[in-house]
Amino acid sequence: MGMTIGEKIIARAAKVDEVHAGEIHTIEVDRLMSNDGTTHLTIDMYHNDLKHPKIADKDKIVFIMDHNVPAENPKTAQAHRKMRNFAKEHGIALYEGKGVCHQIMVENYVCPGEFIMGADSHTCTYGALGAFGTGIGCTDFLYAMVTGQSWVLVPETIRFELTGKLRKGVYARDLMLTIIGMVGANGCNYKVMEFAGEGAHNLDIDERLVLCNLAVEAGAKTGIVEPDEKVAEYLESRGRKAENMFVSDEDAVFEKVYHINLDEIEPVVARPHQIDDVVPADEVGDVRIDEAFLGSCNNGRIEEFRVAASILKGKKVSDHVRFIIAPASNEVYIQALDEGLIDIFLDAGAMVMNSNCSVCWGSCQGVIGEGEVLISTGTRNFKGRAGHPDSFVYLGSAATVTASAIAGKIVTAKEDEE
Amino acid sequence: MGMTIGEKIIARAAKVDEVHAGEIHTIEVDRLMSNDGTTHLTIDMYHNDLKHPKIADKDKIVFIMDHNVPAENPKTAQAHRKMRNFAKEHGIALYEGKGVCHQIMVENYVCPGEFIMGADSHTCTYGALGAFGTGIGCTDFLYAMVTGQSWVLVPETIRFELTGKLRKGVYARDLMLTIIGMVGANGCNYKVMEFAGEGAHNLDIDERLVLCNLAVEAGAKTGIVEPDEKVAEYLESRGRKAENMFVSDEDAVFEKVYHINLDEIEPVVARPHQIDDVVPADEVGDVRIDEAFLGSCNNGRIEEFRVAASILKGKKVSDHVRFIIAPASNEVYIQALDEGLIDIFLDAGAMVMNSNCSVCWGSCQGVIGEGEVLISTGTRNFKGRAGHPDSFVYLGSAATVTASAIAGKIVTAKEDEE
Repeated sequence: MGMTIGEKIIARAAKVDEVHAGEIHTIEVDRLMSNDGTTHLTIDMYHNDLKHPKIADKDKIVFIMDHNVPAENPKTAQAHRKMRNFAKEHGIALYEGKGVCHQIMVENYVCPGEFIMGADSHTCTYGALGAFGTGIGCTDFLYAMVTGQSWVLVPETIRFELTGKLRKGVYARDLMLTIIGMVGANGCNYKVMEFAGEGAHNLDIDERLVLCNLAVEAGAKTGIVEPDEKVAEYLESRGRKAENMFVSDEDAVFEKVYHINLDEIEPVVARPHQIDDVVPADEVGDVRIDEAFLGSCNNGRIEEFRVAASILKGKKVSDHVRFIIAPASNEVYIQALDEGLIDIFLDAGAMVMNSNCSVCWGSCQGVIGEGEVLISTGTRNFKGRAGHPDSFVYLGSAATVTASAIAGKIVTAKEDEE
Repeated sequence: MGMTIGEKIIARAAKVDEVHAGEIHTIEVDRLMSNDGTTHLTIDMYHNDLKHPKIADKDKIVFIMDHNVPAENPKTAQAHRKMRNFAKEHGIALYEGKGVCHQIMVENYVCPGEFIMGADSHTCTYGALGAFGTGIGCTDFLYAMVTGQSWVLVPETIRFELTGKLRKGVYARDLMLTIIGMVGANGCNYKVMEFAGEGAHNLDIDERLVLCNLAVEAGAKTGIVEPDEKVAEYLESRGRKAENMFVSDEDAVFEKVYHINLDEIEPVVARPHQIDDVVPADEVGDVRIDEAFLGSCNNGRIEEFRVAASILKGKKVSDHVRFIIAPASNEVYIQALDEGLIDIFLDAGAMVMNSNCSVCWGSCQGVIGEGEVLISTGTRNFKGRAGHPDSFVYLGSAATVTASAIAGKIVTAKEDEE
């Protein structure tokens, strides 16, 4: 009986020939990632609750500080210190203020066929490189850190068969928000969203990252794009090997198959307070904004920065809007510097932040107040995500966010140019 | 009877021919500056406590958001909104996220001979351009905003007669910390610190800003450097006129005159928790640091960035140090971008923040935890200034801070190069 990509990766991690949806397996975890959202809790449990604390394999673990960096209060500073000291004591790789965890992992670690657990819900991002990445809580992280193992209930796979190409002015983010609008925020609960077909292969790595990153917003266990030559090229350019590039067998069993033509995708916006409340961006109506955000593990890469800069160049951010821009990593930041994009952002009146989760995390940078409206390239728009419970978050592409920052209200890039 | 610079400025503001220390005068305020530390409180009083609210002259007022920008929580966002709306309603100039208030004021507004009140203690900075700048609370700000007037008890003046030149590797910050160490943190309480003599004229504008900015840390009402051609050049390069460049009369009365030879100044460090606990930087002993900060209204200008970059180039920040760098304004930021300094900072592993008060304000960026040690170019080092009450802040020059960030402990730039 054939296997899906997800099943093949789990089979490899479980060291068995074959696994199928509905089975529970013990697996060896290839990598573990934990950020400053919860690592201090894991460390507390490690010290206080374990009789024989030990680390199974330090080389499989990466700690990344990105959520509240630099620390915004002494409590955070203390949590960071705990994380820093633990990493040093155990020889665990630590990234502090170098970027958002998932971007750091993709740039430096993720390989196809790996089973990766991260103490962050958007760990599903890694499927862009053909890995199985999934979010866990800090208790599960502790178990995996100490034993090197974890368990997985093999998920069903839903296949998204993509055809065609995104048109100019339409972005992977529009595609994925459209898909989430179509299937619903619970539409893929505990499923693997597998993206395949000619349309998937037309997407570049950065676009695949956008898709997989938001898979969890449809409830998915993970998202995986069928790996191909583009993945191999990306890995090789970074000195990593393109092994274990699993694709689904012809007789693999999918719970469902969606067919999506990329040519038909239009710019869309997700309205507050649900990510599946998706409407065409030019039908969102007259929505005045207070803040715009470009960044996050979903949309803070050089490709999005280039789009934003091309729209911003020679223009000014609306005088009633604060436009906050945070690179997803220092690699992105340095590239943007070299290309002159940061100059364009500053000239236009945007605020450029250090590379971190920033406004998307909504706890320390660019937090919005009562009644305020944000348009964001972040990952979520639930009530209070960016600050006050009575504030409003719209999600759109980098192009829509930038055009809106200029117009002072939600518009698409096309409308802005008109 | 002759007048000092301070007396001449007050006489002009009081529209009388002569004033002398000890007199109380009603004055017309030339400019008013308020930042997001207290403006929302002023606005609340304006709306709730005044029978006939009005603004005397909107063109004299500048609002600047710099302390908690971008907002780190919904409460701050709400305070910012109040400030933004009030500025818009009354046509008051507003700068949001463009830099630290004093740097913005110096770049865009301050003129010699002006009497300027600012709702921030470091308003004394403006003396670098021959103005009388002084900090006030929000109640005094309200009175001045509504009436255009205020009052002043004419201070005594203490003259600092400077000779010589700072040697290579010694900075204005070393000079001013040395002076504060000499006179004490209360040594100039309610006095004007007047800096004059050939040594003062040898100092460039950025160095004079450093001196005047810290005058309040010796308790002074303000600090003023005798204005000269350098001030005229600075103003002309920015389209402002060099009028009212007051100097003290030969028969002016000074409470005291200090003579300081700039050639004798050495790199120094102020130890926690008093700014006047000043020791030679190479006698501070073995002090391991957790964080280093380059920035603030005292030391976040292009000149300090150049010093830091020259030391950092090709080196790495110590792996146990977070080095946080915040430009004092976007003008500084853009200049630093153009000169390639931001690249050097990022390459070395520093975190580059948006232009704002950052670590110096100690409330939302780079806050330090219990027991942690910071070396900073900020303005203050009292207990808890940068975070936890049981943390430690050392103050030093940009060179000392940068060399320390590399070494992981407090060292001077010279020691670092050895």
